[in-house]
Formats: sequence, structure tokens, C-alpha cells
Amino acid sequence: MPTDLDHLLTFLRFPSVSTDPARRGDMEACAKWLTSHLEGIGMQAELRPTDGNPVALARNQHRPGRPTVLLYGHYDVQPEDPLELWQSPPFEPEIRDGVIYARGATDNKGQLMAHVRGIAATLAEHGDLPVNLICLFEGEEEIGSPNLEPFIAAHRDELQCDLVAVSDTGMLAPGVGTLTYGLRGIACLELRVTGPSSDLHSGIFGGAVANPATAVARLVASLHDADQRIQIEGFYDDVRPLEDWEREAWATLPIPEGETLALTGAPELCGEAGYTELEQRWARPTAEVNGIGGGYQGAGSKTVLPSKAFAKISFRLVPDQKPGVILDLARRHFERHAPPGVTVEIVPGHTGQAYLLDPRGEAGAAARRALGRAFPGDTALIREGGSIPIVQTFKDLLDADTLLLGLALPDARAHAPNENFPVASFEGGIRLNRCLLEELAG
Amino acid sequence: MPTDLDHLLTFLRFPSVSTDPARRGDMEACAKWLTSHLEGIGMQAELRPTDGNPVALARNQHRPGRPTVLLYGHYDVQPEDPLELWQSPPFEPEIRDGVIYARGATDNKGQLMAHVRGIAATLAEHGDLPVNLICLFEGEEEIGSPNLEPFIAAHRDELQCDLVAVSDTGMLAPGVGTLTYGLRGIACLELRVTGPSSDLHSGIFGGAVANPATAVARLVASLHDADQRIQIEGFYDDVRPLEDWEREAWATLPIPEGETLALTGAPELCGEAGYTELEQRWARPTAEVNGIGGGYQGAGSKTVLPSKAFAKISFRLVPDQKPGVILDLARRHFERHAPPGVTVEIVPGHTGQAYLLDPRGEAGAAARRALGRAFPGDTALIREGGSIPIVQTFKDLLDADTLLLGLALPDARAHAPNENFPVASFEGGIRLNRCLLEELAG
Repeated sequence: MPTDLDHLLTFLRFPSVSTDPARRGDMEACAKWLTSHLEGIGMQAELRPTDGNPVALARNQHRPGRPTVLLYGHYDVQPEDPLELWQSPPFEPEIRDGVIYARGATDNKGQLMAHVRGIAATLAEHGDLPVNLICLFEGEEEIGSPNLEPFIAAHRDELQCDLVAVSDTGMLAPGVGTLTYGLRGIACLELRVTGPSSDLHSGIFGGAVANPATAVARLVASLHDADQRIQIEGFYDDVRPLEDWEREAWATLPIPEGETLALTGAPELCGEAGYTELEQRWARPTAEVNGIGGGYQGAGSKTVLPSKAFAKISFRLVPDQKPGVILDLARRHFERHAPPGVTVEIVPGHTGQAYLLDPRGEAGAAARRALGRAFPGDTALIREGGSIPIVQTFKDLLDADTLLLGLALPDARAHAPNENFPVASFEGGIRLNRCLLEELAG
Repeated sequence: MPTDLDHLLTFLRFPSVSTDPARRGDMEACAKWLTSHLEGIGMQAELRPTDGNPVALARNQHRPGRPTVLLYGHYDVQPEDPLELWQSPPFEPEIRDGVIYARGATDNKGQLMAHVRGIAATLAEHGDLPVNLICLFEGEEEIGSPNLEPFIAAHRDELQCDLVAVSDTGMLAPGVGTLTYGLRGIACLELRVTGPSSDLHSGIFGGAVANPATAVARLVASLHDADQRIQIEGFYDDVRPLEDWEREAWATLPIPEGETLALTGAPELCGEAGYTELEQRWARPTAEVNGIGGGYQGAGSKTVLPSKAFAKISFRLVPDQKPGVILDLARRHFERHAPPGVTVEIVPGHTGQAYLLDPRGEAGAAARRALGRAFPGDTALIREGGSIPIVQTFKDLLDADTLLLGLALPDARAHAPNENFPVASFEGGIRLNRCLLEELAG
């Protein structure tokens, strides 16, 4: 009889790369296999079409009086290239020193399958689960989940739940149970600065005509002071301050010295004065230039005075900051700082709320108990700096909070060659699922 | 017998586009025609090979005791596209309302041929010229004259002269004789800012890792104060101040109100406080961003924290500023202002000295007398903001000053569709050549 690991290895062999149209057939095959696997363990499972790749949807027999939990995951993976950097082929999983190497090993097949095998074990043992469970496994996460929101909206009744559980975030260190209870929000905009109607000869006109690239640089430079504090008036007004317990807890998290320097290759770290690195990344808002451009982009020099320049800017937001308000404040800031001689246009982009779940609330406490049982030792309560749009979608459409119970280690190499997932993490994930459903049953 | 104008129209019919390899044959034919035309008017003319397009070289019988004047021009032209915007075909010259429309009409065939026909008239009338003349007409000006400097270096003895005359600059307004007695110099550099070793997720790391695009913006913003005064320490130390007579003369030049706004399409003019527009463009140094870039350049947003960003910067210099010194000062400035968390590399680029000929000196006075005779009324004494590398080459290799006697009107549309040259300018140019050689003979 195949083991839990055998099932994962089978799952990993499907090259379910969602961005590659040539693999449409592999996507379909992978989704079908997953659906029949879910049926095989005793769930009622169906492959549901979308305008893109299908959703594998499964549920146990729901009974009144039990909480309903929606388990989310995705069976699609990132492309495998550059292939030559893989030590073993990305879709021929190999276990070396207790670690599974394959595309999708961590993101997200390994984590998804840990939950499924936890469910299988519980069903095998008890013939039922302690909660009403809905499994929602999509095939388009790596391309931005274009069809997930319409799918949820169209099946809102059927997907109604009390809580969502997702294992697609980070685990602080091997064996350290990790609850991500907060995410930053986002607000994007593009600054477009226009000066002369076409690129000018910088010798003939330079000195009398304002330079849009200089103007955009001055606007970007106006965003921060030397302490990396954002200078937009009112920007910090709504920021919910970090609580003392968080600052204390984060100060003692088991993170190796120098990990961020090693991961990023930055010459040194450099953030807002008065905050630790984790506070800067997880709980302080930022203003980042994602792209800047204007004028000559080729090799050598071309002495033009550019007609246009732009900066794409995103603000990472923290709880209680409102993306719309931040975009308004930013607009006012840029309008007030607009240099003479150019016109400045501000084009708003996408936005998303920050997310914060009180880890001392009911669901948080249940998750912490489950993590503590599955991964003995202190449970890490962390936030993350990124935004996970589906969390907002679940909140908006299903009015459900999300528990983020990540199993992805810092060196998992998700999206990169030699993606990997320790067998111990897989086994821990199976335990986590069993404990979690028990704890959520109350 | 063909008229002066007939000869110009024939010259204009050669599609001598130097940048287009498919027109190598047309280049050759044009150069040959020009050489034989020079022979036909009584010069000793030769087509001289270079590593690129040939040089048409001609001289009269030189005699001791007379000054030697080198007349420079170019027979190559800019490409004609976009063809659909021409009112008449670019290589089928047409005269409408006394204006010749054709590619090269102003730049530089019209101006060159005006001199040649002036020489022809003098030779026909007197059988000799009042000076020792060398005509040096190249075929690669529009592609940066890559073979001119080696050619001059290789034929230094033969090209030895007392003075160079060029008609390839601007004429302030129709019929206003114009002597360009100054040009700005240039010093280029590229700022390269590096942070993390690859683009990062701006959510995961933003806030703790310095952003190279922000850093490059802050460095660019450090270049000017709100009055557009350059903030590099020592930048203005060597600047030769404008003389009172220049400021007074420029204040009354016959330039139409709003001309620069109309030419550039800029929303308003904006230059260094305390200087008029012409002073800003002709006699004040600048720091311009010619290109800035970093991070995501596509449509929409991609929330990366870029690994690298750059700014290509050029300084326009005025007399007595030394390009090498300016690059050193700029390097020191950027090093001192380099924000923490990134590395800043400064890559020096090409440089060129500013040029200034005293228009009250011997050659300047002769040129002014000639301009006054050819174009009755006040002669405009101007500088220009650009750099003309050949002027430096003539100074370096032949130790000769250059008289810039431009016939190109502001609406000549050089390098653009419907390039044009008034017949009156052509005739004025012929007169100018005759007067100039007489005046230079002393």
C-alpha cells in the first residue's frame, strides 16, 4: 500500500505549470488525479470548471452544530527554468538527506498534500472528521488566481464557512510551529512626469527647460527623511502601534543571525530608525519604488533632456491604514511637491487591506494549540510583510478569517531551482492538520 | 548655363544618408559629384578614402604671405523617415514661396554649397581667391564623424591652417547675420547603484533593505536646490562670468516672444534663478539626467524591490570649467551623499571643453565685418548651448580657432520632415563666403 510520501511524490510528478499553455493537459491530469485521490480517501470530490484551470472541490458529510472550515491550497506550480541549475529533474522528485527536491515540493503541493494525508488518516481512523470541511484547491495561484474570486462569488453558499486555513506561508525554522497572524496591505500608484513634448537636445535647451527625470527623482526623494521615515503628511495617523507582547515575542524568535543579509545579498540592512528588522518588515508601512524610468536606457550616453519620466511606487500598509486614504495623502504630497516646469500625473493602482488576526482570540488560540501539539516547543507568532490577496477575498466574499499555518522554510527555494521540502515538515504538516481540525472542533 | 541654385538642387538629389548601409553607393556618387564640381569651379580637388565614407578635399593655389583658411562642411544627411510627413519627396527638392524643401537643404548641403558657389564666383571674377583655402567636406557628420579625427591626424601637414570656418550652426532669424562665438563643453557620467543581489519581493523585505531606485533618486535630487543651482561643492569655482556686453547684447536679440516654449512644448520655462533664458542655455553650466532607470519597466505594477538602478548624467560646461575637474567634484559629491545600504559606482563618460572665441579679436572682427556686409543690419553675437566636437578636434590637432557662421534658421526642421532652406539664405551664404574670404585676407 502506498505511503503518505508515495502519494506526495506522485502528485509532484505532474508538471502542472499554470503559466505555460503547452501544459494545459498536465494541469488537467493533475487536477483529475487530485480529485480522485480526495474521493479515494473518503471525501465527496468534484472537478469544477472555471474560465481557466479547474478547481478541485471536496467536502466531508457536513453536520449541523460543527464549525465549517475551508482548507485552501493550489496544485499549480511555478515554471522550472533555469533547468540546468537543478541538481535533480524538477518533476522527478528525489529525496536526499531527508529532503524532497522537486518543483512544488514546498509551494504548494507538499503543504497541500500534508493536509490531505492528515484528513485521510483521520477518516481512516474515525470514519469522520471533527469539523465540516471544504477543500478548495485551485490551479492558478502562480498566475494571480484570475478565476478564483469569480468562482467563490458564484459558489458563495456552497463555500460558506466559519474559518479558512491555508498552509502557504513561512515556517520560521525547521520544526518551529509558525502562525502568521498579520500581513501588510498595499496601495500602488504611478507617478508620470511630463516636460517637453518630445526628447530635447540637452545642450540646446538644458538649463532653461525643466528635466522630468530630475523632477521624478526629486518627488521620490521627498518620500523619506534620512531616518527612512515617510514624509507624507498624515501617513502614520492610522497606524496601529505594535503591542508590547509582539515586540517582545519577535525579539526572541529563533532566527539565525545574518539570515536576511544572506538571503538578499544586500551590503547592509537599512530601515526606519527605532524599529528592529522584523518590525520594519512585518509591522511598519513602507514606500518603495518598484520601477523608475525615463530618457535614454541604452549603453553609453545619449544627451537628451527626456520628455517623460515615471516612478512606480507601492506603499505597504499596516493594520488600520486605509489604502484609499493613503493614495489620497500621497496624491496631495506629490501635488504639493511637484517641481515647476513639468506636469505631474498620479495614476492609482491596485490596493489591498492589511490583515491582522488576534492570535489570542478563539481561532488563534485553537491554531496555537494545534501548532504546539504538531511541533513541540514554542510556537512562533509572526506577521509577514507581503500581501496575500486570497485572504482578503475570503474576508470579503465569505466573511471568514484565515489562519496562515505555513510550512515553508526560509531555504525552501520556492520559485527557484532545487525547491525542496523536508520529509519531517511533511510529516509535521500531517500532524498539524489532524490537531488543527480537532482543536477547531472545540 | 546652370545657376547657383541649379547646382544646389543637383546636390540635394543625392540621397546621401550616411547611417544607411544600403546607400553606400549614393554616398560615393554624391562625394564624386561634389569633387568634380569643385574641380569644375577651378579648385584642385580629390576624393580621399577613409575607413568610412570618403572626404572631398580641395584647395586653391596656396601662396606664401596669405592666411590659410579651412572650410569645413558635410555632404551626408540624416535619414528621411518618416517619409509620409514630407509635403514633397525629400530627395526631389521643391521650391515653394522662395523656400527650398529637401533633406539636407539646411543641414548641411545648402550651407556648404553657398560657400562653394561663393568661391566659384570669386574664382570666375578674379581667377584667384584672396586667401589660401582648403575645403574639407566629410560624409559622416550625421553618424558622429568617426573617421574625421584620424583623417585630420594623418594629414595634419596638408591641413595646416590659421583658421577654420564652418556654416553648420544657427542663424537667429532670417537675414540676421549670426556669429556663434561660444559653445558649452560636456562631462558625462553614469551613476550605478546596487542593493540586493537580485530583485526582491518588496513585501517580504521592503522596510529593512535599502531600495537602489530610491537611492539613485536621492542622489539625483541632491544635484540642485530649488533655484536650480547646482549643489556640487566647487562646481562654479572656475566658471568665467558672463561679461556685461554679452548680457546686454543678448537682452536685445531679435528672438520672437515664446519661441522656446513653442519649439519644446514645455509647460513653462524653468531655469537657474538670476539668469535670463539665453544666459541659462548658452552660458551657464547644467546637470541634466539624460536617462534614469531601475526595477520594473512594463505596464501596470510588479512589486519588486529592485537590485539595481542607474542615472546617466551629463554636465554642460562653460568656459574655464575643466571636464576632468568637474567629474572629480561630482564623484566626491555622490560619494559623500551615497545613502546607506547600497553601493554606488560612478562610471565616467565622454568629455569636451567649452569653446569661446573672443568676437572682438582679429578673426572675430573679420567675421563680423563679413556678416555685416552679407546681411546688412545688426550682426547677432551668440553662443550656443550644445557642443560641436569638430571644433575641439580642429583646436587640438591643427591649433586653429573656428568661426561658426550659421545659416540654419530656427524653423529649418533639420533632422525632421520638411527640412528647408530659404533661397535668400542660400544667396546670403554666397555673399557671406565672398565677404569672409576678403575680410580674412585683411
